[in-house]
Amino acid sequence: TYISYVRDDNLYHYEIATQVETAVTSDGGGGISNGLADFIAQEEMHRFDAHWWSPDEAFLAYTRVDENPIEVTQRFEIEADSFNVIDQHYPYAGASNAHIELLVQELVSGNVQRLDYRSADDDYLARVSWDGERVAVQTQSRNQQELRLRFYSAGGGKASDHPGAGLIERSDTWIDLHDNFKPLDAQRYLWTSERDGSSHLYLYSNGIARQLTAGTGRVNRILHATDARVLFSGWFNSPVEQHLYALDITATDPTSNPTAITTEAGWHDVVVAPDGSRFIDRYTALDTPGEVRIGSLVNESLKNIAKETITRDHPYFPYLNEHRPPSLGRLRAEDGQWLHYRLTQPASGDDHRRKYPVIVYVYGGPGVQRVRNEWAPLLLQLLAHNGYGVLELDNRGSGNRERHFQAPIFRKLGAVEVTDQVTGAEFLKTLDWVDADRIGVFGHSYGGYMTVMCLAKAPGIFKAGVAVAPVSDWSLYDTHYTERYLGTPAANAQGYELSSVFPYLDGLTGKLLLMHGMADDNVLFTHSTRIYRALQARNIAFQMMTYPGSKHALQERDVSIHRFSLILEFFGNQL
Amino acid sequence: TYISYVRDDNLYHYEIATQVETAVTSDGGGGISNGLADFIAQEEMHRFDAHWWSPDEAFLAYTRVDENPIEVTQRFEIEADSFNVIDQHYPYAGASNAHIELLVQELVSGNVQRLDYRSADDDYLARVSWDGERVAVQTQSRNQQELRLRFYSAGGGKASDHPGAGLIERSDTWIDLHDNFKPLDAQRYLWTSERDGSSHLYLYSNGIARQLTAGTGRVNRILHATDARVLFSGWFNSPVEQHLYALDITATDPTSNPTAITTEAGWHDVVVAPDGSRFIDRYTALDTPGEVRIGSLVNESLKNIAKETITRDHPYFPYLNEHRPPSLGRLRAEDGQWLHYRLTQPASGDDHRRKYPVIVYVYGGPGVQRVRNEWAPLLLQLLAHNGYGVLELDNRGSGNRERHFQAPIFRKLGAVEVTDQVTGAEFLKTLDWVDADRIGVFGHSYGGYMTVMCLAKAPGIFKAGVAVAPVSDWSLYDTHYTERYLGTPAANAQGYELSSVFPYLDGLTGKLLLMHGMADDNVLFTHSTRIYRALQARNIAFQMMTYPGSKHALQERDVSIHRFSLILEFFGNQL
Repeated sequence: TYISYVRDDNLYHYEIATQVETAVTSDGGGGISNGLADFIAQEEMHRFDAHWWSPDEAFLAYTRVDENPIEVTQRFEIEADSFNVIDQHYPYAGASNAHIELLVQELVSGNVQRLDYRSADDDYLARVSWDGERVAVQTQSRNQQELRLRFYSAGGGKASDHPGAGLIERSDTWIDLHDNFKPLDAQRYLWTSERDGSSHLYLYSNGIARQLTAGTGRVNRILHATDARVLFSGWFNSPVEQHLYALDITATDPTSNPTAITTEAGWHDVVVAPDGSRFIDRYTALDTPGEVRIGSLVNESLKNIAKETITRDHPYFPYLNEHRPPSLGRLRAEDGQWLHYRLTQPASGDDHRRKYPVIVYVYGGPGVQRVRNEWAPLLLQLLAHNGYGVLELDNRGSGNRERHFQAPIFRKLGAVEVTDQVTGAEFLKTLDWVDADRIGVFGHSYGGYMTVMCLAKAPGIFKAGVAVAPVSDWSLYDTHYTERYLGTPAANAQGYELSSVFPYLDGLTGKLLLMHGMADDNVLFTHSTRIYRALQARNIAFQMMTYPGSKHALQERDVSIHRFSLILEFFGNQL
Repeated sequence: TYISYVRDDNLYHYEIATQVETAVTSDGGGGISNGLADFIAQEEMHRFDAHWWSPDEAFLAYTRVDENPIEVTQRFEIEADSFNVIDQHYPYAGASNAHIELLVQELVSGNVQRLDYRSADDDYLARVSWDGERVAVQTQSRNQQELRLRFYSAGGGKASDHPGAGLIERSDTWIDLHDNFKPLDAQRYLWTSERDGSSHLYLYSNGIARQLTAGTGRVNRILHATDARVLFSGWFNSPVEQHLYALDITATDPTSNPTAITTEAGWHDVVVAPDGSRFIDRYTALDTPGEVRIGSLVNESLKNIAKETITRDHPYFPYLNEHRPPSLGRLRAEDGQWLHYRLTQPASGDDHRRKYPVIVYVYGGPGVQRVRNEWAPLLLQLLAHNGYGVLELDNRGSGNRERHFQAPIFRKLGAVEVTDQVTGAEFLKTLDWVDADRIGVFGHSYGGYMTVMCLAKAPGIFKAGVAVAPVSDWSLYDTHYTERYLGTPAANAQGYELSSVFPYLDGLTGKLLLMHGMADDNVLFTHSTRIYRALQARNIAFQMMTYPGSKHALQERDVSIHRFSLILEFFGNQL
């Protein structure tokens, strides 16, 4: 019936039949905005919405964001010919966040009710959705060790007024947000939690939880749910693959029987039709660039609808001769956990008399997974074509794993991650085609940080490295991301110090190339200028390349060409 | 009787006997200052004073500078941890200058008279001095092709009211300012002019000029003058030396008889005692680090009072074994003029079977001379100790030469200068100890600009170069310096374009290292960011090193160590 939208920081709805626009709010501007997700919600919480219609369109829930509690700081962006100074309310780690109210307008009366969702003043508003006539709200404590799901009446009543009053998750480390709250009816909803050691499925009935999956494996995303069956993506054999699973939730012990619907080894990204009858499977594997299929969930039919084949007119065809599909494997971390890796051999690596340099291509940051049985980035092939082996290894802290794999980075970053990358490098040295004295490291963003840390903390292992847009000091980053792992700078000063690159720079003896976009608004250029100064003061040799006008991704076509040309030249000279 | 000073942009005098302070002005602040030399006067005109007492202390002349006609622009300075944005009235080439008034206060009455010194609204106030009871004022036209010396009465009367009404110098290129206006009495003054092709001495009597020196040579600075004799520094044999000369101005033809008082070959910096009886000579030569003597001007006595000798406890002693005194020589430019050079051989260059790389160490900018018979910068020895020959060559446009040597750069910079440096490099290739394929180039400021220009315009000659804090685009520089050579951007758009580095960057095939201080307030960091972007867009490989917090000189101790370490490493790898 209605269209809703935000204009100049105020929320409006528009009745299609009558063509009448109504302003829901009028106080937008001057740091106040209505109906729009704030910076932290978008950047770190993966919450992009900030207004939500009730199913019957009788109510409209929305947020009012006041950024004024956040101190205004200035960010600079250097262009080739000029510079920009941007005043911004940036929530630095340990500092104030935006103040966010959750309001509900009843359309017929125009009355607005405030939902008092907070348990503490600094709680985050993580998720909002309508569950029939109730508003389901997920909040996080500032330290992210507590997550609450509560239900409110549209009229603003408290959670305790309602049956199925929600849940509280607690963790000694942190709780990752997800989108797996799925109501089945007024009394029942599905949920995933890591309380059992990995992300598993739970059915809540009148506030009582029943665990539906267990053991080794992970439920990633609930894709479809009925009273009888849940369809979800996840893994139960190996974290380097993702499959579509079906679970009969009426069974006595459903934890024993998730059924894999997809069968080919590899990575399946699945969308299920609203009626649950069919699914689209975007499938890729080490040797499969990409296929899209439509599968039936009532019989076993599966139909290919698109398949990428590298035939003569494909832009990659000229390089196919040199293509080397990577291989997968795993190593033991010092604590016995499996570290999965992906290894690409150099295209010229068939000469068994030669030994080859290897580049460890690293990201390493929390919650992210790189080592998958999927068609790998062509960057690996670029390096392989130029005579390098490439190792990718998902160190502890990486995503799509159990909690005890992710938790060791808590309160100190850049420690076990480096230990695990060294484990990978030591493994490389055992391979007969690898030149053990020519191991490099290369990464972007968190991977840039890892590159500096690897060179500085393990100088005997890594001979040369390229760090693109690296973090150097976590106190320059934002509240929600940084505090999740490190707490606040005030409470964990030593952790911040030991997680920065600076205590280790004296150990930097390898060759380092630092790259940064001079207009980076995510990992500020200041991260790199601090490293420049620290290395210069120590008379430590390094190289740098800075790109005027470029932001964090450095993906402009000419910048990409220049950047990768330089990276190849650098490793060619230094490795 | 009085002390005068400036506080908070207002001029004061203070009577010592009575201890009474009197404010001469009260309108200082908000871009207006009194009694202080403005930016252009200090930076480009070598005029550091802006208030002048009459000899009898009855009058005080002073300037009132209004910077408000100059558009406010912003400059940024990047520190390691932060950045500063500075609002400044910067007079970009072609834009407005400060508005400067010249005022005279009569102390007894307090009355202030404005001296209307301008012939045109945009005239520069170049020099002010008292000549008895008159104020002598030198002005320049905005295009610097006309210089006027005029006399005013303290009461503000026009020049035409007075005998010896001054002079006008005109040039088809530009007129360089000097400090050689020396009144002898109310009717007579000494003056130097390049109107005869080089800086020569003139005696003005009642407005009639008589030339006192002529021919090959230059009068640099009048040091002492009486009715009978002028003492000055300059050269008449070779521009690579400077000597003290005496001239009998009562002689019939004084141009034939300047007598050299200093005799040792080398460079003499001389100060003459106020009574003309003695002089202090600071003397250095290729093989002489430095001596200071007191000489008599009434007999031939000369006494050493200080001499730098490199004995065992001298910090340079450990390097003395490797010391290679440079040699001097000269080459013909394409137009037949002499190009003087200084050549330092590598310390290891005694092995006649080897050939050595050479670095051309260049400045090249107008009005500056580098090639002198003096104890040379130890940077040359640093390079020589590391196995490089070093060539310095003063290209056309350089200083301490005749007008026709300086003039060829008029309206186009970076052209004949590069041609002459190539002449130097071609000469190097004829030397049997020089490896003709390993010639590098290195310079700072104008020398950084020359380095980029040499690499880009003569890629077959120069294999590698280090450009420190280079100019890339003259429209980013100031009025007085830039317009002197190039005119305004509006009037000489093509000259500005062809004098910038950008039309030539496609030719850059040698190895280039660009260095810049990120807080440079003279040659703005923007000069380099523009080069970065232009090279990146062309996918041209280069190296860079930027120093947070450093200004134009990059002379902080740790920055110097890092900088020269990197320069040696760069040439070691690339040359």
